Amino acid sequence: MRFLRSLALLFTLIYGVQAQQPPGSPTPTPVPLPSPTIKIDRYRAAAARIIGAALTSDRAYSRLAHLTDHIGNRISGSQNLERGIEWAVTEMKRDGLDNVRAEKVMVPHWVRGEESLEMLTPVPRKLQMLGLGNSVGTPAEGISAEAVVVRSFDELDRLGEQVRGKIVVYNAPFVNYGATVSYRSEGASRAARYGAVAALVRSITPVSLQTPHTGAMTYDANQPKIPVAAVTIEVAEFLQRMNDRGDRPTLRLKMEAKFLPDAESANVIAELKGSEKPDEIVLISGHFDSWDVGQGAHDDGGGCIVAWEAVRLLKELGLKPRRTIRVVLYTNEENGLRGGNAYRDAHRAEIVKHILAIESDSGVYRPEGFGLAATAPLQMRSNMQEIAKLLSGIGADQIAASGGGADIGPIVREGVVGASLDVNGEHYFDIHHTPADTLDKVNPRELALCVATMAVMAYTVADLPEPFK
Amino acid sequence: MRFLRSLALLFTLIYGVQAQQPPGSPTPTPVPLPSPTIKIDRYRAAAARIIGAALTSDRAYSRLAHLTDHIGNRISGSQNLERGIEWAVTEMKRDGLDNVRAEKVMVPHWVRGEESLEMLTPVPRKLQMLGLGNSVGTPAEGISAEAVVVRSFDELDRLGEQVRGKIVVYNAPFVNYGATVSYRSEGASRAARYGAVAALVRSITPVSLQTPHTGAMTYDANQPKIPVAAVTIEVAEFLQRMNDRGDRPTLRLKMEAKFLPDAESANVIAELKGSEKPDEIVLISGHFDSWDVGQGAHDDGGGCIVAWEAVRLLKELGLKPRRTIRVVLYTNEENGLRGGNAYRDAHRAEIVKHILAIESDSGVYRPEGFGLAATAPLQMRSNMQEIAKLLSGIGADQIAASGGGADIGPIVREGVVGASLDVNGEHYFDIHHTPADTLDKVNPRELALCVATMAVMAYTVADLPEPFK
Repeated sequence: MRFLRSLALLFTLIYGVQAQQPPGSPTPTPVPLPSPTIKIDRYRAAAARIIGAALTSDRAYSRLAHLTDHIGNRISGSQNLERGIEWAVTEMKRDGLDNVRAEKVMVPHWVRGEESLEMLTPVPRKLQMLGLGNSVGTPAEGISAEAVVVRSFDELDRLGEQVRGKIVVYNAPFVNYGATVSYRSEGASRAARYGAVAALVRSITPVSLQTPHTGAMTYDANQPKIPVAAVTIEVAEFLQRMNDRGDRPTLRLKMEAKFLPDAESANVIAELKGSEKPDEIVLISGHFDSWDVGQGAHDDGGGCIVAWEAVRLLKELGLKPRRTIRVVLYTNEENGLRGGNAYRDAHRAEIVKHILAIESDSGVYRPEGFGLAATAPLQMRSNMQEIAKLLSGIGADQIAASGGGADIGPIVREGVVGASLDVNGEHYFDIHHTPADTLDKVNPRELALCVATMAVMAYTVADLPEPFK
Repeated sequence: MRFLRSLALLFTLIYGVQAQQPPGSPTPTPVPLPSPTIKIDRYRAAAARIIGAALTSDRAYSRLAHLTDHIGNRISGSQNLERGIEWAVTEMKRDGLDNVRAEKVMVPHWVRGEESLEMLTPVPRKLQMLGLGNSVGTPAEGISAEAVVVRSFDELDRLGEQVRGKIVVYNAPFVNYGATVSYRSEGASRAARYGAVAALVRSITPVSLQTPHTGAMTYDANQPKIPVAAVTIEVAEFLQRMNDRGDRPTLRLKMEAKFLPDAESANVIAELKGSEKPDEIVLISGHFDSWDVGQGAHDDGGGCIVAWEAVRLLKELGLKPRRTIRVVLYTNEENGLRGGNAYRDAHRAEIVKHILAIESDSGVYRPEGFGLAATAPLQMRSNMQEIAKLLSGIGADQIAASGGGADIGPIVREGVVGASLDVNGEHYFDIHHTPADTLDKVNPRELALCVATMAVMAYTVADLPEPFK
């Protein structure tokens, strides 16, 4: 019965947040939540102080400016990432946070090197591209072959062996990130299965000004590893037109991409130690690594600063919660998730003591609230919605039907309840993983609102006299 | 009196099209136009056939696709431009147009070469740039100097001699093209006046995804020629932040830009010969050259195709006007205007026979009508508004208070009445002079509507039994 109720709830929650329901399907009846078991009145004063302080401080923005302008983008294995980690540890100690430390993590060290794409025939043309993370490179002379453009995996499967010896170009229009990103992650191996020699993937984005988007890809161990790069929407559409007119364009792809030996990196951890139950942990987090283009401002420099600044602000305000709030700035989210896995392994003994793990990794736009894992207990959902009322004045009081994050995934799979800081995502995928993910895209006031939202939720959950469940 | 009335009209017309009037200024009373002296009823059938044919043909789009995809961008002096001209002449003859010819024009031959910008200190960083057309290059080792960022010419003037030996970065926010483009055109010489060694100009655009915009600049003969490049909004804002924090960034600019000897090019001309008054000319035009990035799709491949396809369509429909409709695809609009000047010089004897000259050079978005030169006679304005009623069904019936074009400027200054094809310009400056001015930005239906609009207006004006005045 309980299982069936959970299933029904899941259905409700999932369909509750989806814009398009299957036509004709009945509107699912929302499952009523139990009444909250916590009282939030005693937290109104603290929430007011936190929100006021966040909105009158430029610390979050100036720190994000240092991270993006002075340190720059931070791919795993890079000097920038390690400089950033050193800086964060130094500054967190200066902030007076507790137990500040860098926990060593060995990370993959993928380097892009020089890369280029050109059309050789019917007319020579340089084409905008950006190699995908984890891709192998090409021979020094490049890979030259005819291009075959497909709009979908279905179309690829229909062509089958006809793509042997060719470069497969995926020109799949953006539906949403989750639906379209499989071309980036799986495209190379699915083309290699039919004998393709390289693959190009239309950037996973709704808009473009010749803007290529990189991102991680993974190889199917059963297929040959072929190089793969993103192309801009403009280039994908150009090749589509050439293809459709029967122009049989030939391309030359050059990529020096390769893996160097694993490099030493670290998760950065700092705490606001709990006054009564210091062993119980509310974890708030982002990932400190980024891609090797742009500044990693929204993804995820901003998320890291939000988590960090949330505890710094609490410390400054003298708000000491009953439980410990732990900030984790994970390393290597983008191309390995070694930070998230290492955290789980190093903290196995205390995983059960994590009462909530929140990740901020959707950009630092105007906050809307939190996404709570669909599997979270109903009572906890009810209590989180109650706490979120403290954020209604800044419009950040929604608790969405699902939530989580890549870095907290490993501990969530061990039973920790996960959540995400949810923000207005309207323009995130315009700049995601591009040279245009830069500080000018961050609105200082929206960043401050994210800090306030994270701080109020983390503090209240951590300070509740009752259990948070 | 007549002069005063003209002045009043000019005021009315100018303020009538400006969104923001000075606060508190009275709303100018529109000057009433005289009644039209022409009858448009007899042209309804022709307009219907033209619109129907334009909206059911893919010729305009497929020709623009050939021009952009197979020929590519077309800077003056390039092989692409000359290939394009040859193709147009061949195709126009194949279309059966009259007097198809290429009229030789010598054009400047500016080449970009390799170019780059990097920050050297406080932290090394590659920065997105695109040299401005006509700029001189740097020495091979580049120019390395401290950057000084200003938001306006006023700010530059206040700094004065403090910029000696430095690289001036103009970070002027986009107001509108006309208001902001002076930083691009004059920025180098105005900085050189105070001893600056190079200049960088924030791209003239409201939006950016690390998208640099090139465009023409001109040197003041009284100042030293210093190299100048566009930077993206992202880079300009980055340098502004570095500047404002006192980080004193030093930059290295490398540009191989230079002029080669003038090259041979041509204006392409084709006609639909008039049946009764073949010496009277309605000129419709665009410019065939483009910048050396992107595809020159909206600027101004589209405009050329609109003018060309307008007469091809009339020819196909057997619509032979009383006067001649002449298509001119000008060369070298972007960095010299040699095509427009050469046309004036070669056709001096018949300039007085040009009863109207229309240029399409604002992109080929949804057409709104025409802009008629503010100095056009009131009766002509009234008659043009009357003809435009034939276009009300496709929403292209506005006659704006002013209009014209760079290429027709030389004959307009000799007394020809000028006009522009006016389109929805909402997104033109997003892609103007960038690698993103590509065919995917052109909506085939909007292009066809532009063709219909141009063809109906040109045909009706050219066929009027009465004089068009």
